[in-house]
Amino acid sequence: MTGFSATVLTLYPEMFPGPLGASLSGKGLEKGIWSLETVQIRDFATDRHRSVDDTPAGGGPGMVLRADVVGRALDSVAADDRPRLLMSPRGRPLDQGRVRELAQAPGVVILCGRFEGVDERVIEGRGLSEVSIGDYVLSGGEIAATVVLDAIVRLLPGVMGKVSSGSEESFETGLLEYPHYTRPQVWEGRTIPEVLTSGDHGAVARWRHERAEEITRERRPDLWRAWRDARGTDPARK
Amino acid sequence: MTGFSATVLTLYPEMFPGPLGASLSGKGLEKGIWSLETVQIRDFATDRHRSVDDTPAGGGPGMVLRADVVGRALDSVAADDRPRLLMSPRGRPLDQGRVRELAQAPGVVILCGRFEGVDERVIEGRGLSEVSIGDYVLSGGEIAATVVLDAIVRLLPGVMGKVSSGSEESFETGLLEYPHYTRPQVWEGRTIPEVLTSGDHGAVARWRHERAEEITRERRPDLWRAWRDARGTDPARK
Repeated sequence: MTGFSATVLTLYPEMFPGPLGASLSGKGLEKGIWSLETVQIRDFATDRHRSVDDTPAGGGPGMVLRADVVGRALDSVAADDRPRLLMSPRGRPLDQGRVRELAQAPGVVILCGRFEGVDERVIEGRGLSEVSIGDYVLSGGEIAATVVLDAIVRLLPGVMGKVSSGSEESFETGLLEYPHYTRPQVWEGRTIPEVLTSGDHGAVARWRHERAEEITRERRPDLWRAWRDARGTDPARK
Repeated sequence: MTGFSATVLTLYPEMFPGPLGASLSGKGLEKGIWSLETVQIRDFATDRHRSVDDTPAGGGPGMVLRADVVGRALDSVAADDRPRLLMSPRGRPLDQGRVRELAQAPGVVILCGRFEGVDERVIEGRGLSEVSIGDYVLSGGEIAATVVLDAIVRLLPGVMGKVSSGSEESFETGLLEYPHYTRPQVWEGRTIPEVLTSGDHGAVARWRHERAEEITRERRPDLWRAWRDARGTDPARK
């Protein structure tokens, strides 16, 4: 029995495992909790120049990844239950709920876009699910794929050890995380808030919850509204 | 005169340049368009165990990066005009506008969070600007820093060459990008939309704009509302 199985289709296999080879995800790879295979899209080109891209139909700058080449590359990956993602700024924004879903799957197949994009017909024809990691543009999908895999892998059983629940972290409760403090007690004249060293666990929990609410309300009105709506709190009472 | 200067403070300097050493950003590094320096936070620990973290004041799981150690690491970086960022899920969400702003700066200093977080006092005391790449949790700030740097570097003059304007890309116009097609004309029975091969440039532009609007409206009601509001379009007429 193998663990979570990731296959990445890319023109830059040398970018993997990259940062995923170190730290928690690197240890997870060594322990066989997950595996990472890359497929070089260029190996599926058939002309003598090994072309993978061509100019956009209708004109415009840049190049587009060809449907036939990408289709063959995707078809070379074993047909199985793994979700097939295309990293793309046009995709559904990744959030922690989606990460948790993906971590329940047997693995994931990720196509990394490059250039201007990928021919739309192969996205439709192979049922790729477009995923965006945020509202900014990267030079390609490889670093975005690295983000998705890191977020998934840290949730796999055995990767994080006892700290793994992550239940108090940002997005797991629907609120941003409260501020953290540790020794030294005084640093540059700044002290740790008294309640945190009071030994009163109830007071600590209340303080943290209030700070998490406050930070979320100030920094992310969108998350704050969603959290408040989910709890059915009457906004007029706030 | 040097180019855009990036300094990353991390416990995992071996994660850099990582994917940034390949492709466009790698070529930019070689050409000296930008530079990347890492600072090992652990070098600023002073006890014999070289501790960088300690348990959270008030209890709870995980460890917190110490203010004194991180403060010394930050102070070792030349004081200059570069923005100082902390990668953190509690931060202001990164978007393409912020990326463009950062690309105008002489460079950037990025602190990579790890464990449960960083002692709040050093965030305040050193005026760090918390930045989030999305609403999900990563194993640390290193991959998030890689995302920020890749997004910035591709905008630096000389990195992308002629394709560099990126003006038709997602988020540059406020809309998601229209679909792309390229040869072959027919693939698995699917043809390129006729208008794109008509040679009528006006019709191509109109079709692309309509598709960009349609995709944005369907997939990202949030971006759609913002785009419509920015144009002052009367929603009742839509």
